[in-house]
Amino acid sequence: MTSSSADPSTLARQLPAGVLVTDPDILAGYRHDRAFDPDAAVPLAVVRATSTADVQTALRWAHENRVPVVPRGAGTSLSGGSGGLAGGIVLSTEKMRDITIDPATRTAVAGPGLLNAEVKAAAADHGLWYPPDPSSFEICSIGGNAATNAGGLCCVKYGVTSDYVLGLEVVLADGTAVRLGGPRLKDVAGLSLTKLFVGSEGTLGVITEVTLRLIPPQPPASTMVATFGSVEAAAAAVIAITATLRPAMLEFMDRTTINAVEDALRMDLDRGAEAMLIARSDAPGPAAAHEIEVMVRACRDAGAHDVFDTADPDEGEAFTAARRMAIPAVERLGSLLLEDVGVPLPMLPALVAGVAEIADLNAVTVAVIAHAGDGNTHPLIVYDPADEKMTERAHVAFGQIMDLAIDLGGTITGEHGVGRLKKPWLPAQVGPDVMALTRLIKNALDPRSILNPGAVL
Amino acid sequence: MTSSSADPSTLARQLPAGVLVTDPDILAGYRHDRAFDPDAAVPLAVVRATSTADVQTALRWAHENRVPVVPRGAGTSLSGGSGGLAGGIVLSTEKMRDITIDPATRTAVAGPGLLNAEVKAAAADHGLWYPPDPSSFEICSIGGNAATNAGGLCCVKYGVTSDYVLGLEVVLADGTAVRLGGPRLKDVAGLSLTKLFVGSEGTLGVITEVTLRLIPPQPPASTMVATFGSVEAAAAAVIAITATLRPAMLEFMDRTTINAVEDALRMDLDRGAEAMLIARSDAPGPAAAHEIEVMVRACRDAGAHDVFDTADPDEGEAFTAARRMAIPAVERLGSLLLEDVGVPLPMLPALVAGVAEIADLNAVTVAVIAHAGDGNTHPLIVYDPADEKMTERAHVAFGQIMDLAIDLGGTITGEHGVGRLKKPWLPAQVGPDVMALTRLIKNALDPRSILNPGAVL
Ligand SMILES: Cc1cc2nc3c(=O)[nH]c(=O)nc-3n(C[C@H](O)[C@H](O)[C@H](O)COP(=O)(O)OP(=O)(O)OC[C@H]3O[C@@H](n4cnc5c(N)ncnc54)[C@H](O)[C@@H]3O)c2cc1C
Ligand SMILES: Cc1cc2nc3c(=O)[nH]c(=O)nc-3n(C[C@H](O)[C@H](O)[C@H](O)COP(=O)(O)OP(=O)(O)OC[C@H]3O[C@@H](n4cnc5c(N)ncnc54)[C@H](O)[C@@H]3O)c2cc1C
Repeated sequence: MTSSSADPSTLARQLPAGVLVTDPDILAGYRHDRAFDPDAAVPLAVVRATSTADVQTALRWAHENRVPVVPRGAGTSLSGGSGGLAGGIVLSTEKMRDITIDPATRTAVAGPGLLNAEVKAAAADHGLWYPPDPSSFEICSIGGNAATNAGGLCCVKYGVTSDYVLGLEVVLADGTAVRLGGPRLKDVAGLSLTKLFVGSEGTLGVITEVTLRLIPPQPPASTMVATFGSVEAAAAAVIAITATLRPAMLEFMDRTTINAVEDALRMDLDRGAEAMLIARSDAPGPAAAHEIEVMVRACRDAGAHDVFDTADPDEGEAFTAARRMAIPAVERLGSLLLEDVGVPLPMLPALVAGVAEIADLNAVTVAVIAHAGDGNTHPLIVYDPADEKMTERAHVAFGQIMDLAIDLGGTITGEHGVGRLKKPWLPAQVGPDVMALTRLIKNALDPRSILNPGAVL
Repeated sequence: MTSSSADPSTLARQLPAGVLVTDPDILAGYRHDRAFDPDAAVPLAVVRATSTADVQTALRWAHENRVPVVPRGAGTSLSGGSGGLAGGIVLSTEKMRDITIDPATRTAVAGPGLLNAEVKAAAADHGLWYPPDPSSFEICSIGGNAATNAGGLCCVKYGVTSDYVLGLEVVLADGTAVRLGGPRLKDVAGLSLTKLFVGSEGTLGVITEVTLRLIPPQPPASTMVATFGSVEAAAAAVIAITATLRPAMLEFMDRTTINAVEDALRMDLDRGAEAMLIARSDAPGPAAAHEIEVMVRACRDAGAHDVFDTADPDEGEAFTAARRMAIPAVERLGSLLLEDVGVPLPMLPALVAGVAEIADLNAVTVAVIAHAGDGNTHPLIVYDPADEKMTERAHVAFGQIMDLAIDLGGTITGEHGVGRLKKPWLPAQVGPDVMALTRLIKNALDPRSILNPGAVL
């Protein structure tokens, strides 16, 4: 239980000038994240920490006074994980932006506030690559990525954020700062605490530094695009491809998405297709051509209508851009509730069919895009926020899609996190014993429940 | 605190016939693991569980009676993690050996008692590959691999066990069975509990089922071998190689090891070389030749004496076999204490030089092999167990090598785990705050401290 009667000016005095903000105009900007949860509230104050010491000071104060703390990176959460709480403070890491690259150990040590794109750029300056690429890479923070275990397009071959986090500095609920892991590519000394904090969505501690594994740069990629008369055929192609090789990207768009993208870009996509796959190979040298050939054959064998491939980077980029355009293109149809359910690959057709039924039932449009190679889908629920009834129906559909994913042996979230919006569905997915285990750990690490209360748990 | 006055016959009655063993001849076989810790004791009883239910029954009984439980897979631990405790039971998973492969989702669901090699073989039957390859792969269990987060030769490119564990069934200290994760390639619903249990060395729960990610089969590999006049030159080559590409294997042997292997195999290795690197590329098709070329050039630029390369699988295998022979070859010089320290790559020369000093100081032979691409080294301390003084000096060297690794910013264990043998050094590596955090989690999950007490913590 948390109370919120503490006066933030007592905290302000312990912090460097300007770090604690109570200006209402500024505070208003910290109410929402990208989920625009109407229940999010303007916080009591925002701490824009400039150092680990600032974070420690803030948490010590919050712990003592039992004030809720919402850790916040860049506020691009789609599950309402970084929205403000009434009577709570937002602890923003946006000013913690140092980065050091060590080419010899192929590691980066980054402040949590650096954007994903800035980490990629700093690595590239040393001829190295930081792979994880959430679609939001230009606007989300590396600390937020670690806190949510963010995924992206290249994860089907290169893995998710967790696979690249070698070490963390974390400030615990009581203000203690701990260093977990470090710039060592293999290290099994003690419990896997680094991995526990990755994906903990601000509920166990505040990440104040991230040590990342970098790899050699990605070779130029070739691209393949195929359209299908059914989702089943596309899913069969995905299964055949991933059994043979590891594409560097393997994305899916359904008919609604294809049409929305075509409306926006006029690039001559097949409006009659039920499904489209966009795949890339970055195998070195001539091996890429071979991989593309295998993928083309798999699509044809699965009954693809049209298959196109290109080794030209610009042509390939145009199709990747089409995939990246999917969300903005569908957004032209209305406001979006962005789902993030995952299912085992063979269940993809059942999921897409079930989503279509849910869309009909609730009289809303739902477009489905997917990181098909991982079975991670993003049904995009379109609604008009001015239409209260429709908004309600959209939220019903949001929940029904999660129920469906659970029924199909899937997950309510493949990469966006549970946050506040998906919390009610977590117990149905993981069951009471896992919830109890989660609570044991949460209580051990945050006995006063000040860290992002109401998120996840 | 644990007491050991409970009578195992009360447990025997709750288990299927034959599951609980008290025959002293059989019990004797469960005293030691491969670390041969003299402090290991013959246990009170061994439970050879045949099902998750058996494990639950055993843990419920142990929890109630506060009896220590040592989870055990195949007993190949090199850090004394699976040795018996006086008054405790050993919970062996050796009989839990089911496996199902699902080619469509590229996942395996395996009983913990299956050997790593059996998992690889079952995956290969479906044209798939389970990469992690500890040198002990023919004799260690997949449950033990998950419990220790085992590494191996191909990890430099393909990652460690944790990267392949998608889900676990775990029985907690009080007998509750929980399912964590599952056959979903991306799933961020709730805390990263699966990853927390991977590498927990039997201290948080007993793993009763493992869900593994499989990948398409590895293409045939080409091999490169280079010898150097100094460890510095070899380390420079490793840094140059790993900055440019991801070799499928990148192993190091020092002069002592080269000579021991040459004594054993007579394959014309350069006895005068200070260091030897063995690297492989499995890039598809002609890309392998290109990668080998880049590695050869990096070795020459670093001043290699001799560089040899081959695309012939048998020739390549001969050199990999030489590397695998390193431990048995050095073992011919005496009994071994097998170290497992890791350092950031640029510290490899300092580590090898420091180890040589420690060897001199204690008048023991120490040979160094390393998974060089990860900075994970295995100094092999040779001693004669019949010589009490020498045995003592070997153990002093064992500790000094860990002190050295910590001083160099490294880890006391890259892949073998802390177990009982390395426990005294863990606090020096991670510090008191991380130890306190570890204890918080341990106490939350195992309040009676019955799970592998004395290991890690
Ligand atoms: C257009 C768009 C596309 C997107 N595409 C993807 C995608 O492809 N893949 C994907 O995974 N996500 C995607 N997202 C979601 C979002 O960008 C990710 O979840 C991202 O990792 C959040 O980073 P952030 O810095 O914005 O975090 P925030 O929104 O600020 O916070 C997210 C969560 O992490 C916690 N947190 C943030 N920083 C810290 C810290 N330093 N310490 C502890 N906890 C912290 C917060 O409390 C919150 O629970 C997308 C979002 C948008 C708007
Ligand atoms: C010759 C040789 C070479 C080796 N090479 C490597 C190598 O290259 N890389 C590497 O990583 N290791 C290596 N090892 C070490 C060892 O094989 C690994 O640590 C392996 O993962 C242990 O598996 P196991 O089944 O033998 O486990 P055990 O020795 O039985 O147990 C190891 C630890 O895991 C716990 N444990 C085992 N099973 C379970 C379970 N089901 N649930 C919970 N806890 C459990 C035990 O309590 C113990 O703490 C080598 C060992 C030998 C003898």
